[in-house]
Amino acid sequence: MAVYTQIPAEEMAELVLQFDAGKLISAKGIAEGVENSNYLVETTKGRFIFTVYEKRVDTADLPFFMAMIDHLVAKGCPVPASLKTAGGAATISHKGKSMAMMEFMPGLSVTHPTQAQALSTGRALGQLHGALKDFTLNRPNTLGLDGWLELAARCGDDLDKIQPGLKQRVAEECAFLRANWPADLDKSVIHADLFPDNVLMAGDTVCAVIDFYFACTEIRAWDLAVTHVSWSFDAENAYLADVGAALVSGYDESFGRTGAERAAFSILARGACLRFLLTRAWDWLNTPADALVTRKDPMAFLSRLEHYAAL
Amino acid sequence: MAVYTQIPAEEMAELVLQFDAGKLISAKGIAEGVENSNYLVETTKGRFIFTVYEKRVDTADLPFFMAMIDHLVAKGCPVPASLKTAGGAATISHKGKSMAMMEFMPGLSVTHPTQAQALSTGRALGQLHGALKDFTLNRPNTLGLDGWLELAARCGDDLDKIQPGLKQRVAEECAFLRANWPADLDKSVIHADLFPDNVLMAGDTVCAVIDFYFACTEIRAWDLAVTHVSWSFDAENAYLADVGAALVSGYDESFGRTGAERAAFSILARGACLRFLLTRAWDWLNTPADALVTRKDPMAFLSRLEHYAAL
Repeated sequence: MAVYTQIPAEEMAELVLQFDAGKLISAKGIAEGVENSNYLVETTKGRFIFTVYEKRVDTADLPFFMAMIDHLVAKGCPVPASLKTAGGAATISHKGKSMAMMEFMPGLSVTHPTQAQALSTGRALGQLHGALKDFTLNRPNTLGLDGWLELAARCGDDLDKIQPGLKQRVAEECAFLRANWPADLDKSVIHADLFPDNVLMAGDTVCAVIDFYFACTEIRAWDLAVTHVSWSFDAENAYLADVGAALVSGYDESFGRTGAERAAFSILARGACLRFLLTRAWDWLNTPADALVTRKDPMAFLSRLEHYAAL
Repeated sequence: MAVYTQIPAEEMAELVLQFDAGKLISAKGIAEGVENSNYLVETTKGRFIFTVYEKRVDTADLPFFMAMIDHLVAKGCPVPASLKTAGGAATISHKGKSMAMMEFMPGLSVTHPTQAQALSTGRALGQLHGALKDFTLNRPNTLGLDGWLELAARCGDDLDKIQPGLKQRVAEECAFLRANWPADLDKSVIHADLFPDNVLMAGDTVCAVIDFYFACTEIRAWDLAVTHVSWSFDAENAYLADVGAALVSGYDESFGRTGAERAAFSILARGACLRFLLTRAWDWLNTPADALVTRKDPMAFLSRLEHYAAL
């Protein structure tokens, strides 16, 4: 949520030319994205987001992410198109960092999604999944079941510093999920991080789905679970039944689920809660309390996990 | 250089309505400004900068700053106009913070100003000074001569932690400036912080002068000195004679200086260097080395000070 790489205007003007994006008019560093540096730039050809990939995104994964974005755009999904260099590349390298340039998409990320907004988002997620059925690249999910077990082990006893008893509860949940994780559901490339932050809306309409940097090959229905756990709770982590139901019905309407996917829903949602609980716990334990970056509360996802566990 | 106050989209949509600015389409937190939080917002009525004033700006000073901006806009200066509420107010208060909304101005802040850009900037500064001749409000300069002496005392022995001998050099300079500071030059409201950051340019043309939050009543010619010390040196602090000369000739062309102002130029410039040396030194000593905010090197302004002292 900061601009880590400062790019002087004169340099930005040159970089933008590499994407054949016209003459630079304005550039503002924006406080957005998963630890990348982003600029909202205006040129004689339009408005764009210029991204500098920082350490959290492995540049070896960029061809996968950019191909996925191109694929979705080609299928008419609401995703910002990426610009290409004269040589057809979607990224450039400058001073040791990879950089990309995408269409600017209007729209607002809502904080308190309504039923109507959840319905549109469920439909948009189904549309993405439909478009990705014939996308052939793969990227392993480093934050899947095995990743959670490893992350839980790395956090170790420190989990109890966040809340006494958390280590034990996480161990139980890991064991439960290992024993009950569905083995036979369809896998596909998924977004894997469709929080409200990553959907730009105009009223109840989805303008754009953004931030594909956790996309990976995973149980497809887990993507709906991730979306469900991130959209359907209020600030006090109380379940919003109407929002949750609208999200699922939008998805079922546009893509649909098998009986097995429906049956596995609460298990998948528990896995989604555990994933965010653990990555937030790790960040919490490894971010100084006085750092300027906001530490996100891991306990919110324990509370949500218990909601699904009680179903 | 961060967004300190996060405003949810739903809340921003309401705030924007208070300025009669239309329906919110997009809002991006931008990494800009003197420790204020700024959003680049788009509405059905256009693009704007929405500012949340944080602790560094004293809200008691806001009526002065906003009146100054209105005055400059009314006189046709390249300054972003501030929006008003239905009741005519230039700021609103929300959750204990003051907020304002201004026109978005295109243009880029250059990092390596050219001679032509310095000429335009000198002219724009002269235009501002002409417009401010009949501006009747006053705000004391807390970062004037007395302020430097106080700041030097507060930094005390710690100055030598930045560079051995710095305390002694600062003390000598404070004594020199106290003895030689011009007493009879015209005072006026000035910008007082016209670094390249605070000028938005399209090619060689000034689109906008921004960031009036250090504006104060001070020796008018000191404003040209502040601009000179901040524009006329390269990254290694070597003096760029062509840039410096262009800045001064643009100013002289549009506003002009008296003989006494010309004679005092190098003293005023030494004062300007000392001002930025000391505020940067204070920030340096009081910002943890690992903080996300960039610490600006105070020594750059000692090197520039020595340039003027040698004249």
